[in-house]
Amino acid sequence: MSNLEIRPRSGVAFTMNRGDILTVIDPLGEQVADLVAYAQTDIREVISSGRTLDYASRLFLTTGDPLYSNRSNVMLTIIHDDVGRHDFLLTPCSEDTFRIIYGDTHPHQGCFGNLADALRPFGIEPDAIPVAFNCFMHVAIDGKTGEISVQPPLSRAGEEIRFRAEMDLIIGLTACSALQSNNGSFKPICYSVTPAEELVPSQHA
Amino acid sequence: MSNLEIRPRSGVAFTMNRGDILTVIDPLGEQVADLVAYAQTDIREVISSGRTLDYASRLFLTTGDPLYSNRSNVMLTIIHDDVGRHDFLLTPCSEDTFRIIYGDTHPHQGCFGNLADALRPFGIEPDAIPVAFNCFMHVAIDGKTGEISVQPPLSRAGEEIRFRAEMDLIIGLTACSALQSNNGSFKPICYSVTPAEELVPSQHA
Repeated sequence: MSNLEIRPRSGVAFTMNRGDILTVIDPLGEQVADLVAYAQTDIREVISSGRTLDYASRLFLTTGDPLYSNRSNVMLTIIHDDVGRHDFLLTPCSEDTFRIIYGDTHPHQGCFGNLADALRPFGIEPDAIPVAFNCFMHVAIDGKTGEISVQPPLSRAGEEIRFRAEMDLIIGLTACSALQSNNGSFKPICYSVTPAEELVPSQHA
Repeated sequence: MSNLEIRPRSGVAFTMNRGDILTVIDPLGEQVADLVAYAQTDIREVISSGRTLDYASRLFLTTGDPLYSNRSNVMLTIIHDDVGRHDFLLTPCSEDTFRIIYGDTHPHQGCFGNLADALRPFGIEPDAIPVAFNCFMHVAIDGKTGEISVQPPLSRAGEEIRFRAEMDLIIGLTACSALQSNNGSFKPICYSVTPAEELVPSQHA
């Protein structure tokens, strides 16, 4: 399947079936993509940062790490990662983010609003949008003070992360809308979904 | 109001109105209490670790810090803190925690099951239980590797944390059920809710 583009400061939603591979590409470098996931069979089952980080005993996830749902089922597994640094702590940027953190008087709807729009046709309400797995987002943490700071992503042009769906999923995915998260400019994100039946054996790894 | 006791490995739920003060006490020391909150007017509005940590730009919260909902409204403010170290990253312990992390074959239902039981009469479903604000939980973080490790709580016998309700709330609160989080033993938690109208002026601070 050829790559699809998410234009700057926007988002999409789509379905994947178990075994399909999602590739998220940063075509220009230093651009974040927020990813959320819901079970097709019951949208109340949703990706969970709290369960995933607890079971991993690690804040930074990469190749081999499973992403769990709020029911402790594995939704996605990271099977390839060019970058090695992503975030699973912070909420999608939103009108509130831009109001509270940036002081904007006419804030953009952010990844949260973009996800809400994209997920609405699947019956998913804004309140049900959790902490996203923020591909390529670089959040520095001071283990002593707990201070967190958003740094430029480590992703370079063309680098990617790939996930295998471990159940039938509804995915929300954005090209992030926050200046600070994307080193000061808004860029597109590309992605593709490779159906399980089109995979050559080596891609199953 | 006199103190109420949550017996070891159990949980409760109750309502608070705006302005009321919740005091959570660790009577014996080194015991964690998981706290979740929902808006009385709409239980889809729920405490959010992702929004709170994002707006605080800090993982460790203490006196003066607001706890936000998934709609970016302040639900609670920490107004007093004897201990200074709590966790807002990890999911309430559950059957899955004990199965996945401890390898238990007949796992306890954990804080998650205790919260689910206590919150059910309020119409709150298990799927709607988020990352809790884990009072007294001591999670050490390596900022370089992202490794997280659960350490003995820093709370000593009788120490407490107090919260002011900033809206009308349903609260879930536990005496945590995970051995590792409580330095190897299960102890009670005490709490009290002081109605706003009974506060003397200095308690409003």
